[in-house]
Formats: sequence, C-alpha cells, structure tokens
Amino acid sequence: MALIVRKYGGTSVASMDHIRRVAWAVTATKEQGDQVVVVVSAMGGETDRLLKLSEEITPVPAAREQDALLATGEQACSALLAIPLESLGYRAQSFTGIQLPLITDHVHSKARIIDLKTDLIKNSLEEGIIPVIAGFQGVSKNGSITTLGRGGSDTTAVALAAALKADRCEIYTDVDGVYTADPNICPRARHIEKISYSEMLELAGLGAKVMHVRSIELAQKYQVPLVVKSSFNGMRETWIVNEEDIMENSIIKGVTLEKNVSKISLIRIPDRPGIAYQILEPLADAAINVDMIIQNVSIEGYTDLTFTIPTTDLNKASDLVYEVARNIDALEVRADNNIVKVSAVGIGIKTNPGVAARMFKALSEENINIEMISTSEYRISCVIEEKYGELGVRAVHKAFGLDATESTETGS
Amino acid sequence: MALIVRKYGGTSVASMDHIRRVAWAVTATKEQGDQVVVVVSAMGGETDRLLKLSEEITPVPAAREQDALLATGEQACSALLAIPLESLGYRAQSFTGIQLPLITDHVHSKARIIDLKTDLIKNSLEEGIIPVIAGFQGVSKNGSITTLGRGGSDTTAVALAAALKADRCEIYTDVDGVYTADPNICPRARHIEKISYSEMLELAGLGAKVMHVRSIELAQKYQVPLVVKSSFNGMRETWIVNEEDIMENSIIKGVTLEKNVSKISLIRIPDRPGIAYQILEPLADAAINVDMIIQNVSIEGYTDLTFTIPTTDLNKASDLVYEVARNIDALEVRADNNIVKVSAVGIGIKTNPGVAARMFKALSEENINIEMISTSEYRISCVIEEKYGELGVRAVHKAFGLDATESTETGS
Repeated sequence: MALIVRKYGGTSVASMDHIRRVAWAVTATKEQGDQVVVVVSAMGGETDRLLKLSEEITPVPAAREQDALLATGEQACSALLAIPLESLGYRAQSFTGIQLPLITDHVHSKARIIDLKTDLIKNSLEEGIIPVIAGFQGVSKNGSITTLGRGGSDTTAVALAAALKADRCEIYTDVDGVYTADPNICPRARHIEKISYSEMLELAGLGAKVMHVRSIELAQKYQVPLVVKSSFNGMRETWIVNEEDIMENSIIKGVTLEKNVSKISLIRIPDRPGIAYQILEPLADAAINVDMIIQNVSIEGYTDLTFTIPTTDLNKASDLVYEVARNIDALEVRADNNIVKVSAVGIGIKTNPGVAARMFKALSEENINIEMISTSEYRISCVIEEKYGELGVRAVHKAFGLDATESTETGS
Repeated sequence: MALIVRKYGGTSVASMDHIRRVAWAVTATKEQGDQVVVVVSAMGGETDRLLKLSEEITPVPAAREQDALLATGEQACSALLAIPLESLGYRAQSFTGIQLPLITDHVHSKARIIDLKTDLIKNSLEEGIIPVIAGFQGVSKNGSITTLGRGGSDTTAVALAAALKADRCEIYTDVDGVYTADPNICPRARHIEKISYSEMLELAGLGAKVMHVRSIELAQKYQVPLVVKSSFNGMRETWIVNEEDIMENSIIKGVTLEKNVSKISLIRIPDRPGIAYQILEPLADAAINVDMIIQNVSIEGYTDLTFTIPTTDLNKASDLVYEVARNIDALEVRADNNIVKVSAVGIGIKTNPGVAARMFKALSEENINIEMISTSEYRISCVIEEKYGELGVRAVHKAFGLDATESTETGS
C-alpha cells in the first residue's frame, strides 16, 4: 500500500464535470489499495475572477486582504471535490491552510512554509477518510491568512508529501510532463521521461510553467519522488528524481524562454564599496528577486549597474530604485520590459566548456544580439530583445541536437 | 464616542460599486468619531452561485463540506471590503469565523454559537484598525468550518455587539425597516418605527425576511439595541427594543405570510403514551423544527397526528417519519406542501381575548378554510391553502385596522 500525495491544478478542476472526473480517479486509486491525500488549486479562472474584483477598487490591494480573498478559491475547490467523493460513498474531508495548520512567515502573496502539522490528515487517513487540502495557502504566526505565490499548490503538495513521508508526489496538470522546450514555440520539442531535480529547478525558474520552483527545491531537499502527469492524457509522464538515478544524460536537457523579465539600469553611479548593496538591499527587503546583475568597468570613479527582475515587480522595484538613485546622485534610471531570457539547461553544462560558445554561435547566426549573459552550474542564460525570443529558442534547441525528427504531438 | 457593530446584507454588497459605497459609509461614521466593527454577508448572488456548483454533483452535499464551501462567500466579501477601506487611507483587517474564533456546536448548516473571542477585534480597534468580519460562519470545537444558517450574518453581528458591549447593532439591508405586512403582498402596509424584541421575534419566525430569528433572540437576551436601516434609502428605520420602551402599543403589530411550511400527517396510529415522542424524537435529533402539532381525538385506541415543518426539511423529515410509521404500523403517511401560514403578531394578543375570533372571522368572510391553528402569547397562526395566502394576509391586515389610508411607498 503506497501513500500518495496528488495535486490537481486549476485546469484539472476547471468545472464540476472536471471535478467529478477527478473524484473518480481518486477513488480508483483508493480502490487499488493506496492511500491518497489530495491537494487542489482553485477552479481554473477563479483566481483571475477574484483578482478582477479587487482590481475594480485598486491595482494594488492591501496584501493581507488580497491573500484572504484569493485563499477562498482553493478552499471552495477543496470542498467541491470532497462533495462528489462523499456522494460516491467515500468519506472525505476538506482542510484549509489555517485548519491544518500550515504555518508560514508573514510575507503576504509569497509566504514561505515554516511548519506543517499533519495530525488532522493522519487522523483522517487512519479513519479511511480522504483528506482534500486547499493548496496555495497558509496562516502566519499572528493568525493572518497567507498565500504561497501563484502555483503555490505544488509547494503545498510537496511539503505534505515530505511531512507525511509519502511514497511519491503526483502533480496532475494540463500537460503530460516536461518537454525539451515549449512545444507551442518549438514544434520539434521532445518529451522528457526523467529529469534531475537540479535541471528541473532551472527549467521551472526559467519560465517552464509545468511546476512551481519552490516545490522542486522542497522535493530535492526532502528527496520526494515527483511525477508530472496529465489529467487529460494518461499516456506519458515525467519523473523528477536524483541525478544519479538517471542512466544516460544528455548535455542539455531543455531550452526555455522567460518572458516575465525586465531590466533596470542605473547610469553613472559612484563606484565605491557597498554601492550595489545599497541599491539592491531595498529590493531584497521587498522580497523582489534580482536575477542577473552586471556592473560596468569603472570610468573616472563612476560606473553603471544593470539588473533583471520579474516584470510583475517592475513598478515596485522602480519606485524603490528611484529613491536610492536620488540619494546616490545617479545620472539616470532606465527601465526596460521589452526583453526576454533564453536559457539552455542541463547537468552536462558544468563539464562541457564548449556549451556556452555553441549557444552564442546559434544566436549570432540568426543575427540576435545578446544584451546580458549569466551562467550557473546547470544553465546558460542570454537576455535578448523580446521580438527574437521564439526564434532564439528554436535556434538553440536545434544547435544542441534536441530537435525531434518529426514535429511533436503534445499531450494537452 | 459610540461603538457600533454594523452588518451589511448581500444586496448591500452585491457589486464592487456597492462595496465601495459601503466603504465610504463606514469611513464617514469613523470620521464622526465612532468606532465601527463591520460584519458582511456574501456578495448578493454568491451563495446561490456556490450552491449551484455543488448541486451539479448532488442535491444533498455532505454538510461539513457545504459549510466549508459557503463560508468562502463571506470570507471573500470581508477581504473585498477591507481593500477599499485600505485604499481610502484607513487601516482595515478582515477576519473569518475560524480566525476570531467564533466557536459553534457541530450542527452543520445551522450551528449555534458557543463562544466568541473578541481579542483580535479589540486589538484592532485599539490600533485604529477597522475590523471587517465575515458573517454567517464559525468553527466547531473539532476545527470544522460551520455556518449559522441562511441570514446567519445577523446573528454574527448581534453576538459581536453583545460580546463587545457595543452601543448598538445596525442591520443594513435592502428595506428601510419593518412593515405591518410585506408591502409586495399588502400595498397598504405601514412602516413600523419601534417594535419590541418579542414581537420582532414572532415576525421573523413567521417569514418576515428582515432579520434572522436567532439574532433577535440574542439581542433580547443581551439587551442589544438593534436598528434596521436601508443601504439605499436613508429616510426611515425601525428600532427593535424592549417592550417597556415603546410608549403606545397597538394590539396587532403585523401580519405575516410564511410559505416555507409543509405538513406531515400520520393516519391511524396507536393512541398510547409516548407515541408522539416516538414520532417526533428523530426529527428533533435531526435538528428539524416541528412547529404546530395536532393530535385528533382517539377513536377505538387509534388517533391521527399532524405537524408542520419547514418545506426545506420535508424530504429529510418524510424519510424519518416513514421509518417510524413502519415500526408503529401507521395506516398511512401524508405529506402536503401546498399550504402557507398566515399569522397576526402583537403584544396585545395576550390581553385581548377577542383577537383570535376577529382573525377567524376575517378569513371566513373570504371563504378561506383554516386547516390548523396555533396561538402563543404574541401571535395567532392559521394554516390555510397556499393559493389563498396573499388574500388572507390582506383580509387580516384590514380587519385589525392596520391598513394605511394610502398605498405604502416602500423603501427598497
């Protein structure tokens, strides 16, 4: 008897018909003798509906209240899945983040999990009750409702799998796993059967929408075997496991296109120790992820600093940077959101020094100018003009020999 | 500086425009120097939307899950009101039943309040924060989300007003108070400026939709001054106070029509001690309110028993009664939902013995047959055929001299 934590994303529970089918699937697994803990996202479209309501008032709603608002989507969905489970003759109980409780820090809209109590879930399982957990949400120590960021239900599922020492964590979504590139951009993308946590972490961090970054970090940390499946097409799946559990590994596993990227440049700032820290500290305090950072060679005691951030944080970041810019007498602040990031990801990168060069060559052959470069153990990323993004992905995908001989049939 | 608990019903928060106006009204009161604790219902239509989703699965969803589902309506609304309050430059915090906590018994869908913690609300008030409470909901001692029954937000408001020792509890709704009859049925109905708790209790129990019965019981018990106002028309209001605070009192205060009534008859049951108890106990256990009960004169050791229940409980009640009927060898069980209850309410009834006769005469003059009668200190009720309901109300309203000289303009 296996203990499975299974998460259903918004498209898998987009209507009551979908939810009914999910209920059947859950009971089928239970009938096979396994124990299932279900985690649900909000019904597809529900989070946007709620956001739209608050946007009728203000584009920047109070963070605590927006979290309380959005958490209702997952709560409603968890109850709406427990209802058909019960009416099929099974026992089921929904639980919200505050009920478990799943305790987080105080950073509204991207809270991190501090502690997760599983007593209620274990009691339910012992009594043969199927627990249905509202994903995405928690409660801070002062009792406020928090959310884990968009896609945070993946994190809820993996955290539960870790805490319950589950045999595996299944992520049901609208695609049948991970591909070497987004098949919508790159028709010759190939399905990946097994990928390492480290590679998946890079792919997810770079805009592959299949899974939430933090959930993969957690899975790696607690060694939770993860599998991504489609709710609609049961043929293929992608396992996310340890590097050493993958027999043959290609140099490059996939190519990604990240669109949620903007850059901010501070022109002519004094080149003195601590200046970068002075600029970037307020962003860190505001929980804005600064990604690539480039500082120019100093000329006459002055330099330029450019860094990238998620476009969703651009307004907040600009406000913070303008304030620092005034204090340090910067000549100018420039913000640009017409850029994208193309990245190649693979565990072969660290041991194959020629990989970066091959990527730069592929882009230059298409006359694409590279504005910023960053590399890590598992990836190389190039910031390029937005309009060349899709072309760039196809060029790099082909250059690394990832193209399938025929156009891919996607699972969605 | 007064402390006011103010409840807004679903029609008062039916859209974001409505919610924005409510936010203005709340801040206006605060600017006058008063402290306001706001209680909200779900946005108008939201509860029905959620019920419709669960009804796509089953007409009888698991009660625990339905409560978890419905509670999201008020939670979302409380956050959606806190957002404009914050964006107007005030501080506001939403709280759900589980956050306060408002602790109830375990009877899902009509839970009763056991305890209500006000620490969080008091802390908020001390810090100048406007607390916005999600009405209608609580949490049972085992941590499940419960709801207080439809209209339960009134009860939340009065319970808070009692626990906080508020100066008054204001109920904002879509009508400007209580009328001597439903103006839609009886165009000559008159607005009531002051009514006693006891009379209001009877009116609410008999289908006057203005307020939730239990909220009035609580207000009377804890002597909370209540006032009912319109969110749309500020001209008139009805105060609900102690009997002795009303100078001039008419014999009859109002006439009501209750449509949510069905009757069940058990034909030819053995007339032995305890038989009524045996029949009615399962209904009490299922928290079904049995209202009027009539037992016929015994003939040859057999009798008939007829009682009324809310139509919403008819299916559940029938199932329970059929089971008992088999055990006690009843000849037949009859269920009838084509009936209504017309009632006259007023504190004059107990001291004016001719009141009942006057009501029966008014109905008989319209050739309306009375099927069942019950009386209490403050009311006389007659069950009649459904099709005569509205005519019956007008006849009784006129017979007690309640008709206004001109047709009423209602506030809604």
